[in-house]
Amino acid sequence: MKPMKPGPGLMKHFLQIKDLRAEEYTYLFERAKIIKTRFKNYERYQPLADRTLAMIFEKASTRTRVSFEAGMYQMGGSVVHLTTGDTHLGRAEPIEDTARVISRMVDLVMIRTYEQAKIELFAAHSRVPVINGLTNEYHPCQILADIFTFIEHRGSIQGKVVAWVGDGNNMANTWLQAAEVMGFEVHISTPSGYEVDPQVAGITDRSCYRVFDHPMAACEGAHLVTTDVWTSMGYEAENEERRKAFVDWCVDEEMMAVARPDALFMHCLPAHRGEEVTAEVIDGPQSVVWDEAENRMHVQKALMEYLLLGRIG
Amino acid sequence: MKPMKPGPGLMKHFLQIKDLRAEEYTYLFERAKIIKTRFKNYERYQPLADRTLAMIFEKASTRTRVSFEAGMYQMGGSVVHLTTGDTHLGRAEPIEDTARVISRMVDLVMIRTYEQAKIELFAAHSRVPVINGLTNEYHPCQILADIFTFIEHRGSIQGKVVAWVGDGNNMANTWLQAAEVMGFEVHISTPSGYEVDPQVAGITDRSCYRVFDHPMAACEGAHLVTTDVWTSMGYEAENEERRKAFVDWCVDEEMMAVARPDALFMHCLPAHRGEEVTAEVIDGPQSVVWDEAENRMHVQKALMEYLLLGRIG
Amino acid sequence: MKPMKPGPGLMKHFLQIKDLRAEEYTYLFERAKIIKTRFKNYERYQPLADRTLAMIFEKASTRTRVSFEAGMYQMGGSVVHLTTGDTHLGRAEPIEDTARVISRMVDLVMIRTYEQAKIELFAAHSRVPVINGLTNEYHPCQILADIFTFIEHRGSIQGKVVAWVGDGNNMANTWLQAAEVMGFEVHISTPSGYEVDPQVAGITDRSCYRVFDHPMAACEGAHLVTTDVWTSMGYEAENEERRKAFVDWCVDEEMMAVARPDALFMHCLPAHRGEEVTAEVIDGPQSVVWDEAENRMHVQKALMEYLLLGRIG
Repeated sequence: MKPMKPGPGLMKHFLQIKDLRAEEYTYLFERAKIIKTRFKNYERYQPLADRTLAMIFEKASTRTRVSFEAGMYQMGGSVVHLTTGDTHLGRAEPIEDTARVISRMVDLVMIRTYEQAKIELFAAHSRVPVINGLTNEYHPCQILADIFTFIEHRGSIQGKVVAWVGDGNNMANTWLQAAEVMGFEVHISTPSGYEVDPQVAGITDRSCYRVFDHPMAACEGAHLVTTDVWTSMGYEAENEERRKAFVDWCVDEEMMAVARPDALFMHCLPAHRGEEVTAEVIDGPQSVVWDEAENRMHVQKALMEYLLLGRIG
Repeated sequence: MKPMKPGPGLMKHFLQIKDLRAEEYTYLFERAKIIKTRFKNYERYQPLADRTLAMIFEKASTRTRVSFEAGMYQMGGSVVHLTTGDTHLGRAEPIEDTARVISRMVDLVMIRTYEQAKIELFAAHSRVPVINGLTNEYHPCQILADIFTFIEHRGSIQGKVVAWVGDGNNMANTWLQAAEVMGFEVHISTPSGYEVDPQVAGITDRSCYRVFDHPMAACEGAHLVTTDVWTSMGYEAENEERRKAFVDWCVDEEMMAVARPDALFMHCLPAHRGEEVTAEVIDGPQSVVWDEAENRMHVQKALMEYLLLGRIG
Repeated sequence: MKPMKPGPGLMKHFLQIKDLRAEEYTYLFERAKIIKTRFKNYERYQPLADRTLAMIFEKASTRTRVSFEAGMYQMGGSVVHLTTGDTHLGRAEPIEDTARVISRMVDLVMIRTYEQAKIELFAAHSRVPVINGLTNEYHPCQILADIFTFIEHRGSIQGKVVAWVGDGNNMANTWLQAAEVMGFEVHISTPSGYEVDPQVAGITDRSCYRVFDHPMAACEGAHLVTTDVWTSMGYEAENEERRKAFVDWCVDEEMMAVARPDALFMHCLPAHRGEEVTAEVIDGPQSVVWDEAENRMHVQKALMEYLLLGRIG
């Protein structure tokens, strides 16, 4: 009986942006466009029929949940949705064992958890590809969606400037890593004490980003302005402290005015209007946040297709 | 790229009975019969293949859950099941934003929540049809099932008398609204303090119902006798008080005896034998409660088909 | 309209091993092998398209959850996954009513609960087959997987000796029952106070098992050595007491050395290395625990196929 799955090392995971090369991203964005068009035109395309995705959520989620699950269904596949009520990674049994067992039964695993180390450990013992659906350190699927949305509206992101305003969190880390891999520049401004750590971001080339004290300075001439909530899930205890520290890091029309006239605004949602972004900006003409949310689904479909089937045609 | 979904206002929602016209219900019941027959005969009929339903539950449920989910699978489609653990409507983000995001990714949304206003707000910002799976005010899918079950056993409900015995709750409201739209009469008897409010029920024509002090009087000559638990989900604190108030509103053989000899008994379940209905009645020959439960699934399949595909043939 | 489902008594349930006959198990293991091979070779085989499985979990689970759900998807079917948040058997309504309602809407039900009596009661009022996914008394699906794994590696289990080392729990009960039905012998050694009760095990022929005070004695000459955690789910309060009582019931290399040289080691997982089994054994060459875990899925697919479609060809 020939083994169904390639063993560890013989396949690709998507745990951080560095796991794929620039040309693979070019391919993924082309596929995402094709897959999205088919979806919009009701052309049935189900290359993943008889493939099953296991999703393991240690943090709750609406967007990640719906985008992966609906995306997998649209590709003809099926989904097993596990929460901490079903599976608490590393509690009832070593993560290695859970990885061995689950990866015998499904074709693909998506994990949303806390430490990146957990997902790396799972992947090392998995027979099937593993996708990072959010960790403390990275959020690579969201960045794929953001860049695909940029390309859709403005063409290639190469050489462009992305302004990151706010928390030096997993989104910021992932933007930096993407800048290094895909060849664009991040202008980042965070409150003092919330800086991004290039080591955590995992970048080697510091020319891919510039740090600014003032958020206005970061936005100057940017092709894309983007931010995130002041207090990410898991940091609720710091809420009050953060509100004070971040008060000047609210993306408003003034900030957008110093960016390029055709600059886009993005936010990975949920958004708190009046905190990290004003209603005028997020609900205004430069905002592409709804396209961005929808595109999570389409880029992830392209990603799943690639991890399971390789290059098509 | 042509838009996949019609924008708000260009499609139908099913938030209350008034949202459709009498002739549309006639069509739905005909389709439900056809769809049920196919199911019984194992004739595969999957017109919703590649369509996805998102179900948002803010209240737990067995019947609504299984009937929608199994129904969607039988029609070839898929389901994303969200609970308050995943999505708490209006807490993490404005309902408008959740509606915008989710309705970009799926084809249809079912919501079980508290205030009708929440589901109306969601629908107003949704790109895809929204179905009311139970609110404090209405339970239109259950009433569809009940009327379909009546038609199945006794033919048209037009001009008939439905006796409602017990709480003036969302089921009672929905019966009144259905009576107005479909042309039958509700004879209603509730304990004092638990009356139905015609304004909440949303009816304009008061000739569609009559109020009786005594439940026996409401049942006299009725073609259908129906009731619900004394204490609906969410009112558990009033349990003791309600037990006292409702003690004479137990549907028993005496009540059934004053209804028409061919009167049916219905209950949307779960039932508490010895409280709102005796075991003799619910487990007796006039009771059609199991058909009624199964028919939830079949009318909902017809409803989903209609909202997504319009009239067939 | 002809009824879709056979009524109670006209179909088979799988509530304990005694529910099927030896020849039916022979058939099931042959089918499991065919179905597994197809899976490994990516040959699509979807005989359960348009069939829906309802899974009711009153105890959390990873393996049972993923193996049934992914298994059903691979067979082309769909799954409704209910937890106690959705349905608490016997709380909101009598189990009989839940069985009547759910079995009107789906084609097959799997239940993981506490008392065997609950699942027997459910099955008695179900229109569709019911599968025991674990009770306090039995775990028949796991034993199917174990025996199938034995056959895969060593051929027929008839006449062989299976050593059970540890708790006289639901796994031990089910091994005894399987020994009686399929004609092999169980050598069992439990700490004092944790003996298996042949009456609970539901066996009539005491020649199918032998009890040993010392675990080494039970392992002597065994073809298969198997164990389980010291403290099963639900018994956490006894944890400390059990740790002391079970200290000599750890399967180690010494125990494996007195078994047959080609003896296999199995464990239904999750495993606690250093407690009921050493890392050397579970991660050693005689261990087939990962095959065993995967085989849950394949035997359950064969079981579902049999309960829904009867013998194929």
